[in-house]
Amino acid sequence: MTEMIATSLETLTDLERLLHAEIPLTRAMGMRVVRADQNGLVLGAALAPNLNHKKTAFGGSLNSLATLACWGLIQLLVRERGQAITVVIQESSVQFLKPVMRDFEAVCPPPPAPVIERFLHTLERKGRARLALDSAIHTDGEVALRFSGRFVAYDRTRFQGIEPV
Amino acid sequence: MTEMIATSLETLTDLERLLHAEIPLTRAMGMRVVRADQNGLVLGAALAPNLNHKKTAFGGSLNSLATLACWGLIQLLVRERGQAITVVIQESSVQFLKPVMRDFEAVCPPPPAPVIERFLHTLERKGRARLALDSAIHTDGEVALRFSGRFVAYDRTRFQGIEPV
Repeated sequence: MTEMIATSLETLTDLERLLHAEIPLTRAMGMRVVRADQNGLVLGAALAPNLNHKKTAFGGSLNSLATLACWGLIQLLVRERGQAITVVIQESSVQFLKPVMRDFEAVCPPPPAPVIERFLHTLERKGRARLALDSAIHTDGEVALRFSGRFVAYDRTRFQGIEPV
Repeated sequence: MTEMIATSLETLTDLERLLHAEIPLTRAMGMRVVRADQNGLVLGAALAPNLNHKKTAFGGSLNSLATLACWGLIQLLVRERGQAITVVIQESSVQFLKPVMRDFEAVCPPPPAPVIERFLHTLERKGRARLALDSAIHTDGEVALRFSGRFVAYDRTRFQGIEPV
């Protein structure tokens, strides 16, 4: 798995730049790319700009960071192959389990290797492929949020005019 | 139903002020309270601060606005009774059906009257009550997003220290 996830600082800086450029609200959220390794992609956000009732993190911000961790993981999986893609979310479901009272991180672990292989193979053959991903936010050793989403990646050279959601 | 939803400008201004004060990201999103009537609560957001790929609305922003429409509807339902509440989201699921390429509005219709009555009765009796709500975002006459969420409202005078998510 490790080799499928880019860990070089350059790629992570690229990913952060991509996120900030394409989704300006990520800057308002204080979002940053923390790391990517065999455990997946980790995005962080500051509590201050995402506060709710002046005390805990706004559910919409938690949900967004968990979504973006999955979005970013797909970008990293595909970038290794040099393909330019548009990633669209189709569905998501979220459980809010604990309030978050400090800066927070969302982790999107990579799916099993055969799932990634099938995804990349389909993307290469058909120019588009679906991927279901889970992510989570922990706080003080407990799960604060569980996220499950279904995404579609489109090869930009073969599907022009696909509008991301 | 109509009488349960506050429509006076003063209350809508209060609600917008509450949202902007308690969730600062709503200001970054350009969120505003559009109207509340027998069809429910409508929140609006500008496209510009919520862009994705410089063309369409970011899924996280759509999700947030749909969540806030439900959150706001609960505030309006309860405010009529003069209770101060904390509203917490427990679960949500979202379908992203169409990209949104202009300013957008999320509508949360009120649930059936008996459901509202039961919710308010439980809140008064136990100091807390659950409510499942759906909301949607339309664009160019089509549904762009369907949201379903489960919320819990707590009477602040009886449940202190409840931390909103």
